[in-house]
Amino acid sequence: MSDTISFVLFSGTDDKLQAAAVMTAGAAALGKRVNIFLQYWALDAFRRDRIDADHGLSPEAGPAGRAAVDALRAAGQASWKETLGQAKELGDVDIQACSLSMDLLHLEESDLDPIVDGVEGVTAFFLAAEDGEVVFI
Amino acid sequence: MSDTISFVLFSGTDDKLQAAAVMTAGAAALGKRVNIFLQYWALDAFRRDRIDADHGLSPEAGPAGRAAVDALRAAGQASWKETLGQAKELGDVDIQACSLSMDLLHLEESDLDPIVDGVEGVTAFFLAAEDGEVVFI
Amino acid sequence: MSDTISFVLFSGTDDKLQAAAVMTAGAAALGKRVNIFLQYWALDAFRRDRIDADHGLSPEAGPAGRAAVDALRAAGQASWKETLGQAKELGDVDIQACSLSMDLLHLEESDLDPIVDGVEGVTAFFLAAEDGEVVFI
Repeated sequence: MSDTISFVLFSGTDDKLQAAAVMTAGAAALGKRVNIFLQYWALDAFRRDRIDADHGLSPEAGPAGRAAVDALRAAGQASWKETLGQAKELGDVDIQACSLSMDLLHLEESDLDPIVDGVEGVTAFFLAAEDGEVVFI
Repeated sequence: MSDTISFVLFSGTDDKLQAAAVMTAGAAALGKRVNIFLQYWALDAFRRDRIDADHGLSPEAGPAGRAAVDALRAAGQASWKETLGQAKELGDVDIQACSLSMDLLHLEESDLDPIVDGVEGVTAFFLAAEDGEVVFI
Repeated sequence: MSDTISFVLFSGTDDKLQAAAVMTAGAAALGKRVNIFLQYWALDAFRRDRIDADHGLSPEAGPAGRAAVDALRAAGQASWKETLGQAKELGDVDIQACSLSMDLLHLEESDLDPIVDGVEGVTAFFLAAEDGEVVFI
């Protein structure tokens, strides 16, 4: 098992962010270093003023999928933000915003939720990824 | 070339599942061990009572894409289920359902098509992935 | 850092193709060999007669995302085709069309933009990927 795994989060829907958060927590629990790189609509979902909002689901979810996710939320399941926060407490998880996507969305670092650790370019991201897996979500 | 490649299947549309099945068959033919981990809408597509149904295409497919896929199916192209079955006969392919997604969708193991080998958590998935590639589809 | 990174491009929307192009340029700038494998709707976007067209955005982009992308384009941001062309000049970038997707879409190699270097099967793609990362977009 390599020591580092890196996730490029592109999609900003709650189902994909939840999948990413669970994989992050699992990898961190195994002692892996986890790098998260936020691009496009995923970055938008980490805005301070929107991170707790409903970000919708993938188009294919359909009404049954919607109902299933709503039922879990009503039952008190941790949100993806909470799961990521737990993973950061548990292990070595670094969350960076993609500088090009910051420009695209006209964001300043102060617009982002404090769970985001900083802003970096794609070259820095690849250097941090070392020789570990890179997963695009 | 590393010995193991692991696919996290999240999307349940026929085009992405077909892409995953073809890559699985190609990797198995090269002697790689292939781990498949079924989450969310991909897991839903592996339900025993739905696996042979039409699961739709990505929203971007459009009418021309729809027609192309329908024409191939009418011409007798193997479905993704058939391609996965051939890959399992040919090589070392293990298909596991994500336990959290099983809960989300209120599924029991008996609800799944027998092509699925079992249910596991994300930690077990990462341990099985060893130091090989992890691909999210 | 491994020497090779391989991108399987499945989606044909401008936002995902731009994300892929920027990661390609970043990896090439770091001296990595980059393999790109075009499938399904991404392959369709590389047709000679369509590569410069508007390919839309992910469904989740919404009106605000659409406006942000349009504003960048109006300001003269390089298109994903231009960014890929620059990456090819800068480093070792090879773009191959998936032979199965060529059949699906009834395409000949002459239908593709010259930025595409050739057509290959999934087995050849995995051999070229060696032991590097494989990223599905």
